[in-house]
Amino acid sequence: MDFDKIIDRRGTGSVKWDKMEALYGVSPEDGLSMWVADTDFRAPDPVQRALQAMVDHGVYGYGSDEAAYHDAITWWMAERHGWEVDPAHILTSHGLVNAVGLCLDALTARGDGIVLFTPIYHAFARVIRAAGRDLREVELAQDATGLYRLDMDAAEAALTGNEKMLIWCSPHNPGGRVWSRDELEQVAEFARRHDLILISDEIHHDLVFPGHTHIPMTALDDLSDRLIMLTAASKTFNIAGGETGNVIVADDTLRNRIKGRMAALGLSPNIFGMEMIRAAYSPEGAVWVDELVTYLDGNRRLFDRGIAEIPGLRSMALQSTYLAWVDFSGTGMPRMEFTSRVEQGARIAANHGPTFGTGGDSWLRFNLGTPRTRIAEAVSRLQQSFGDLQ
Amino acid sequence: MDFDKIIDRRGTGSVKWDKMEALYGVSPEDGLSMWVADTDFRAPDPVQRALQAMVDHGVYGYGSDEAAYHDAITWWMAERHGWEVDPAHILTSHGLVNAVGLCLDALTARGDGIVLFTPIYHAFARVIRAAGRDLREVELAQDATGLYRLDMDAAEAALTGNEKMLIWCSPHNPGGRVWSRDELEQVAEFARRHDLILISDEIHHDLVFPGHTHIPMTALDDLSDRLIMLTAASKTFNIAGGETGNVIVADDTLRNRIKGRMAALGLSPNIFGMEMIRAAYSPEGAVWVDELVTYLDGNRRLFDRGIAEIPGLRSMALQSTYLAWVDFSGTGMPRMEFTSRVEQGARIAANHGPTFGTGGDSWLRFNLGTPRTRIAEAVSRLQQSFGDLQ
Ligand SMILES: Cc1ncc(COP(=O)(O)O)c(C=O)c1O
Ligand SMILES: Cc1ncc(COP(=O)(O)O)c(C=O)c1O
Repeated sequence: MDFDKIIDRRGTGSVKWDKMEALYGVSPEDGLSMWVADTDFRAPDPVQRALQAMVDHGVYGYGSDEAAYHDAITWWMAERHGWEVDPAHILTSHGLVNAVGLCLDALTARGDGIVLFTPIYHAFARVIRAAGRDLREVELAQDATGLYRLDMDAAEAALTGNEKMLIWCSPHNPGGRVWSRDELEQVAEFARRHDLILISDEIHHDLVFPGHTHIPMTALDDLSDRLIMLTAASKTFNIAGGETGNVIVADDTLRNRIKGRMAALGLSPNIFGMEMIRAAYSPEGAVWVDELVTYLDGNRRLFDRGIAEIPGLRSMALQSTYLAWVDFSGTGMPRMEFTSRVEQGARIAANHGPTFGTGGDSWLRFNLGTPRTRIAEAVSRLQQSFGDLQ
Repeated sequence: MDFDKIIDRRGTGSVKWDKMEALYGVSPEDGLSMWVADTDFRAPDPVQRALQAMVDHGVYGYGSDEAAYHDAITWWMAERHGWEVDPAHILTSHGLVNAVGLCLDALTARGDGIVLFTPIYHAFARVIRAAGRDLREVELAQDATGLYRLDMDAAEAALTGNEKMLIWCSPHNPGGRVWSRDELEQVAEFARRHDLILISDEIHHDLVFPGHTHIPMTALDDLSDRLIMLTAASKTFNIAGGETGNVIVADDTLRNRIKGRMAALGLSPNIFGMEMIRAAYSPEGAVWVDELVTYLDGNRRLFDRGIAEIPGLRSMALQSTYLAWVDFSGTGMPRMEFTSRVEQGARIAANHGPTFGTGGDSWLRFNLGTPRTRIAEAVSRLQQSFGDLQ
């Protein structure tokens, strides 16, 4: 796979490229788009062949191929994550934001408290607020090396007694932490102690860098009566536009409540999303992901090296994800200034830290899922834009 | 467009062909699938080209192209239905069953009465029940020529006082009625009088046979504060697998309530569905639809002629849709018998009448959206299977 190849996505209806000017004031003419979490890479060959076969067939009626779809998912989870999934436990949502929305809707009530460890993927808080649930933010701590760590004292202190659910991100976005078994145990214990339903969003689980191993939350004991696993092929294979995700629930009561809401809402998955996933979760897809991770590893090294050379900037060492998380607090600049140096100066669209919740104020998130020449260009623009600090 | 061409859909993940054996006991080996409402026709060239361009591009990230998508919809509604749609009034759902589910969820409460004129598209009742709403069925009458007519006395009599919504199907499925302005006025007046929100599902509006003109419910006065229009390109262009539909709401309060639920549920449309629709709603798409309607008109004539030759069988004269609605009551046979003569005898999978609600008992629905040779074959098999009645 040629990840170096530049594919021009401008004018293709891509949010990342076609909305960057409206949202960040960065022109796609010469700007670099490093915000929303999809990559600029072509999907792997098995996905391309599957879609091409659909187009050659040309009939796009109602789909049904659940068996093959479920087989692919169970194969992938067993093969790549040592996780044996019962196909009867799989529900198909319209992506994982929808999955979170369905869990909130089916399993909590208006006014219930929902716990998040922040900074965290921004859509969680958006959906929690839109659903009229109460957001409980627990700020992550940082260790001596600048990595996110759990602060369970802060977690205990944040609770008011009406909390019903914890939405957990593993690996974590932003910051890329691959949580250790010990950390996962602390989270599980917290959920048990406070009788919280635990939503484990593991969408980034395939993009883990050498030296780290992702542990699915299902590997822990005494959780299955409260655990909901969210997985998707969308980040792994860059097929998020298919808007298809999995809600995997071993507990019958929890699963039936979600299923009941899906039936009442008349939700059915689309044939393109399902077919891409069926094709992607394959031995050939696995080889592609391994190559992708190696490539992304190179990107983040290049990026981190460049950022480290700018006084006052610090990039959290990613253990997973292609989403670099950069702290600008060392510059002493107000948020407006470092942001404008990135947007107007370096002409880079990057996600604003505060959207990720408490603890995100001095940060920007840069998407490294793009050909390496663009990473080099981004680094050089940032070094120039913050050049007076050298 | 070559509608005569047989495209083998077996083994492609098509519900219609791959589930017929499990659901109807009719083997795809030599069975004819005439149930679920998609056709066996290839999508029009503009859709094919648009999807091919997506595959050639090969990057399937998050989509954004709302402007072009909305432009295509407003153009089509104005051009084909004389209906000026404000793009700001369009919400995109995951198909129209989801649209109905969202309307129920956003605009009614558990236990509210929802009115249906039956027989009607089966998913409405399914979603109403799944949502814990109360189903109020009003049976349609038939005139001397056997066409469905409104029975407004029955409608008045059906109400208990807790009704909040009427889900209306125009053109009607099954039976294919294209409702007259006078009939639409009666429905509108009924909705006003009983303060019902009126959901007008017009998914079949493009497939109207010569001599009939579909009138969008928006053409009526004094309705906009209670009217929700549902439209889709899925039946028109045979792209239902894309699971994308439109909820068009002029009233700000109603629209914002639905929008609020969509936000809380984290729903976003997929890029394939949107792009197919953008491409389909075009002058080239319009020519294709005109040819399709002419072809379907030929199919229903052939089918109706053949059915008329079987004593005791009667096909309602379709004014719209490719869904023939056949009454077996004249045979005097119990439902089990005529159904088994169709399924085991003629080896045809057709929808069972009772699923469409009160009034459907003695009926089967046959999907005529297939190459004409198959219609001829279906007719000959039915004539043979009911041959002893000749
Ligand atoms: C943790 C996490 N969950 C969910 C999503 C989005 O999921 P989807 O596109 O399936 O709605 C993202 C995207 O960045 C994410 O980082
Ligand atoms: C009246 C009506 N509404 C909705 C649908 C299905 O819509 P969708 O596939 O968009 O959910 C059908 C399909 O037959 C229908 O006849």
